[in-house]
Amino acid sequence: LPELKTLVSEVKKVVESNEVRRLPKPPKGTRDFTPEQMAIRERAFGIIASVFKRHGACALDTPVFELREALMGKYGEDTKLIYDLADQGGEILSLRYDLTVPFARYLATNKIENLKRYHIARVYRRDNPSKGRYREFYQCDFDIAGSQYAPMVPDFEVLKVLTELLDELDIGDYEVKLNHRKFLDGMLEICGVPQSKFRSICSAIDKLDKEPWEKVRKEMVEVKGLTAEVADKIGTLVQQRGSPLVLLEELKKEGSPFLENKGSVAAMEELSTLFKYLEASKCIHRVVFDLSLARGLDYYTGVIYEAVFKGTTEVGSIAAGGRYDNLVGMFSGKQVPAVGVSLGIERVFNIMEEQEKSRKRVLRTNQTEVMVLVLGKDLAEVAIQLVSDLWAAKLKAEFACVAGGKMTREITNAVNAGIPWMVIAGENELKEGNVQLKNLIASEQTTIPRERMVAELQRHIGTK
Amino acid sequence: LPELKTLVSEVKKVVESNEVRRLPKPPKGTRDFTPEQMAIRERAFGIIASVFKRHGACALDTPVFELREALMGKYGEDTKLIYDLADQGGEILSLRYDLTVPFARYLATNKIENLKRYHIARVYRRDNPSKGRYREFYQCDFDIAGSQYAPMVPDFEVLKVLTELLDELDIGDYEVKLNHRKFLDGMLEICGVPQSKFRSICSAIDKLDKEPWEKVRKEMVEVKGLTAEVADKIGTLVQQRGSPLVLLEELKKEGSPFLENKGSVAAMEELSTLFKYLEASKCIHRVVFDLSLARGLDYYTGVIYEAVFKGTTEVGSIAAGGRYDNLVGMFSGKQVPAVGVSLGIERVFNIMEEQEKSRKRVLRTNQTEVMVLVLGKDLAEVAIQLVSDLWAAKLKAEFACVAGGKMTREITNAVNAGIPWMVIAGENELKEGNVQLKNLIASEQTTIPRERMVAELQRHIGTK
Repeated sequence: LPELKTLVSEVKKVVESNEVRRLPKPPKGTRDFTPEQMAIRERAFGIIASVFKRHGACALDTPVFELREALMGKYGEDTKLIYDLADQGGEILSLRYDLTVPFARYLATNKIENLKRYHIARVYRRDNPSKGRYREFYQCDFDIAGSQYAPMVPDFEVLKVLTELLDELDIGDYEVKLNHRKFLDGMLEICGVPQSKFRSICSAIDKLDKEPWEKVRKEMVEVKGLTAEVADKIGTLVQQRGSPLVLLEELKKEGSPFLENKGSVAAMEELSTLFKYLEASKCIHRVVFDLSLARGLDYYTGVIYEAVFKGTTEVGSIAAGGRYDNLVGMFSGKQVPAVGVSLGIERVFNIMEEQEKSRKRVLRTNQTEVMVLVLGKDLAEVAIQLVSDLWAAKLKAEFACVAGGKMTREITNAVNAGIPWMVIAGENELKEGNVQLKNLIASEQTTIPRERMVAELQRHIGTK
Repeated sequence: LPELKTLVSEVKKVVESNEVRRLPKPPKGTRDFTPEQMAIRERAFGIIASVFKRHGACALDTPVFELREALMGKYGEDTKLIYDLADQGGEILSLRYDLTVPFARYLATNKIENLKRYHIARVYRRDNPSKGRYREFYQCDFDIAGSQYAPMVPDFEVLKVLTELLDELDIGDYEVKLNHRKFLDGMLEICGVPQSKFRSICSAIDKLDKEPWEKVRKEMVEVKGLTAEVADKIGTLVQQRGSPLVLLEELKKEGSPFLENKGSVAAMEELSTLFKYLEASKCIHRVVFDLSLARGLDYYTGVIYEAVFKGTTEVGSIAAGGRYDNLVGMFSGKQVPAVGVSLGIERVFNIMEEQEKSRKRVLRTNQTEVMVLVLGKDLAEVAIQLVSDLWAAKLKAEFACVAGGKMTREITNAVNAGIPWMVIAGENELKEGNVQLKNLIASEQTTIPRERMVAELQRHIGTK
């Protein structure tokens, strides 16, 4: 055994040794964000954060990992996708799987009973990566916690935020599918599903956006053990969808099976209020009441929703959320009702990248306003004096010092990079106390005294 | 053995079960950022990113974890502080320890030989947490990679960026200690230290900012195996520090031992150029040439530096960096010279928090401009219509619907939160088609037609 340990340790050394063997790469399911992608990402985050701030949310951030125990019992069948850290002595840790559970943990830790917050950060899932699906990806979350609100008012605001996000990101036509956990449970009760099978049948129903009813029915009967009769009853109810007010009206009509179930009736009351608010806020046309929406996660207790692109079945959801009134209490014993939405941003990035490509303009990856070019060897010091004056005036500037013959190449580079201004100084200009000021967009050039350089550029560019 | 497995699995279930046993907390060495802290953090990041952008840097982001092999052989004695992920099948991963190695890995992965980038992100170290020292903390990195530059020009710009950062964050008087790895190696050679002991003696020298020479000398002799004579020789040289141009002049004087060592001579040549540039850019007064600065990390090859607060020995460094010409080549086999700096932001946050407290003003955690208050039960729909008009005009607004008696409390809350405007509508106003517009800062109130609400507020607040 000691020999084995030595051998393992030797093998480890060799494996971990730093010899160049293959080109390194980011881990599977992750990616680097290139400067071009970062430019798009920052634009997207700017839009998203502005919507969140418009609704009075404050920002919050939590650690990338949590105590493993904090994540257990929250994600149902998806718990197996959680990344664990190695046990290196000390606490047992896991990477966060979403931003909702850390938010609930934060409220519990600090005994906060009332908070409207947003959180834009990465989460981690050991899922099979595919196009547009990563193991490390951003979520943009907006949540309202607290019991001081009138019924369905926070639920309304979260849905309003979701429609504003998708409208302002301008990434294509979408719809928000909406359902209610209590309504769903009522439906299962009506159909005769035993309570112990509710969550597992919900998981099956949740697949209806990707799979035909026949396949889901088969799973219910053959894997989850429902009778054919019960499954068929689910089938007749679950496939209803439509405009919220119209379908709700339908489901409330005399003779509707839903009127006989306490849970369904309570849920329809809440939905009625919610739909009234969405109508008052002119965003109800984005919402579809869809009885097949179930959502996999354990912690939802009320309204649930999911935004999808219209006309595509492949892409899946771009945002999802719902009410979770019991999650904070799972940590602290004291319930804090809460509702929220989470926007998965990777697909949004992809769409914005495509849009950007089709525009065929220069996508700037930096914001440089002025390129200082000093011609002649050993004049770096002069270039540094010039550019330092620009920096001191808070102008965004870079500098280079090249032999005169290389000027054309430097100008071409600056134009390609989208830099609007250039300061050029050769030995002649410098002797006379001048520099050349070149507008690279208009292709105009003037000679000005060196002392006027900063003021001239400030006048053209403007400083905040 | 199977029984043991069952037992372990049962124990695991109990431990991981979701019963409330104790208040949850963030993992040791990490922290949540409260809304107040986030407001300060966003201000700091705003300043830092604006300095980076002023110097033409583009943004870049890499995954939070890397293949473990990518981190091996880069951090010397600190490798033991790296967080590993559990082996759950698949690749062997570790959390990033800094942003420099992932940057080098990115360049190698994508065969990029020229990039000026910044990166603001969290890194992870299994160190002992203490006040202001975390296991998860932000670094703000600026690096210039590429061989197209004149000697010492990128080194100058990185140091310039460092002084601009610390000047503009305005967190107290500081100095930048500076040395050169080749100069240091030359010194050790001159003193008769065998080459195999260079890095380990450097680690000892690096402790001179916290420990007296006597203690460091003892470590060199008793732990690291130097003779007393060699250690004393190091002692006479290493304790020199002073104004860059003055000390360099001194070290170049006839009879200086450094003139006899090839490495030291080359290093002094580079430092001479660098100091000339720093002087031209008017920031050399921030720099101290300090022969005891050694830096623990393996990968530095040229100039090294570290910024510390003046007048305190306790706080340690707030920023550090240097030249690392061999790091990219460790991945790809092809060298890309690079130089950079890393600002550790947690201490900056702490100082800014203290500053904020002493100012005794309202620190706003959200940006709400208008509070819509509708008085009377069952008028939520009206409040939603009003606030939706404001949102549509991109005004930042929240709303509440309360009984008339609670108005005073709502106004007090809005004033305390720093919200400048309030729209108040009771049943009387609504009947007459009016709302009240209240300026909470001036404590002035006017009645206006409801249709004028958006325009009036836009006029007062201004929209971008």
